[in-house]
Amino acid sequence: MDKSLFIAFEGGEGAGKTTQAGLLHAALQDLGRPARLLREPGGTVLGEYLRDYLKSARPLTPEAELLLFAAARVELAVNGIKPALDAGGIVIADRFAASTVAYQGYGRGLDLGLIAALNGFATLGRPPDLILLLDVAPALGLGRAAGQQTAFDENRFGELTPLHRNAEGRRFEDLALEFHEKVRQGFRAQAHSDPERWAVIDAALPIAAVQQQVWRKVKERL
Amino acid sequence: MDKSLFIAFEGGEGAGKTTQAGLLHAALQDLGRPARLLREPGGTVLGEYLRDYLKSARPLTPEAELLLFAAARVELAVNGIKPALDAGGIVIADRFAASTVAYQGYGRGLDLGLIAALNGFATLGRPPDLILLLDVAPALGLGRAAGQQTAFDENRFGELTPLHRNAEGRRFEDLALEFHEKVRQGFRAQAHSDPERWAVIDAALPIAAVQQQVWRKVKERL
Repeated sequence: MDKSLFIAFEGGEGAGKTTQAGLLHAALQDLGRPARLLREPGGTVLGEYLRDYLKSARPLTPEAELLLFAAARVELAVNGIKPALDAGGIVIADRFAASTVAYQGYGRGLDLGLIAALNGFATLGRPPDLILLLDVAPALGLGRAAGQQTAFDENRFGELTPLHRNAEGRRFEDLALEFHEKVRQGFRAQAHSDPERWAVIDAALPIAAVQQQVWRKVKERL
Repeated sequence: MDKSLFIAFEGGEGAGKTTQAGLLHAALQDLGRPARLLREPGGTVLGEYLRDYLKSARPLTPEAELLLFAAARVELAVNGIKPALDAGGIVIADRFAASTVAYQGYGRGLDLGLIAALNGFATLGRPPDLILLLDVAPALGLGRAAGQQTAFDENRFGELTPLHRNAEGRRFEDLALEFHEKVRQGFRAQAHSDPERWAVIDAALPIAAVQQQVWRKVKERL
């Protein structure tokens, strides 16, 4: 049986996570090691149901938002990630638990201790073997994300747009950037505290250069 | 300003929580102290959305179930309970955090420490002032609940029915009763450990007799 491997892509808006996860998935396929590619929230009946709510403009407290992401995650861990890893497979996650630490913890200011406990529960105590942080300055990443039509994050944070834009356009942009700076610090702090598991990649580089660095890190673990 | 008061009804299936919460609500109204009557999960846009899923037969792990209840609870705490109590009002909850300890903790066997942390978070650290445990033997309560058309719990646990019934009718009944016995023990253990906050009422008694005991306990706190 092949050795199981759990890889997560993490990073802010427009960092290129979905693109790189797809490229890695294709490269592994070419190597005869097909991987399961998962994106959060989603991938289960419950995850898609919660994703619909998270994407919408319906009311949601930051506290409940945290718990919805955790619920989607544990549903995916039980039904998708754990069975695949137990069978010796490779799993690629487009965002995982570290995003909750960065967005809901560092970004929204919710309790990091509770988030750690929730993440331990929601991941069934099985963190990724390799976490690839696609690190990019928020100003650059947000600009990229604004040009994408498919990005979920665009909607997720975009729901605040009309409200703030109407009230005070300038303040929204400042607020948003400050939020995303905190998120970036949240990712970097996690990478710094666990360098064995994390690899930080400069995501301002061209796609092919990032892809090369991703592949080098993954190859070491195959 | 009147003194705020937060009252929760707890107990197993068919214990009469909804009936007694409604009667108490009416009695307070007659006294010129209108209360806000809330039922979980529900009472918010998110709560109703999650309730739809929980009531359905769609797949759901016990772990995600725990987090959905917590998400519905915190949404209700922020938008309904806290504002009402801050304004000196009375809030009556038809089930609250103790149900999670009893059902997901004692019943389903999920970690009680995590549940306690989640409950503290989801209730914004504001537990009920008075918790009325309507205690009834599961065999009696389940029989009552089966005769109700409105009970949510009937659906919630009813979703297991076809699977187990098809496989082995007898075992399902045994399992179900065993589950509900654990839930009852979960409620009783909580009441036992915090007698200042909890009142245990024999819910096998007629409705009027239970109502009288409920009223006596509530009057002490008004």
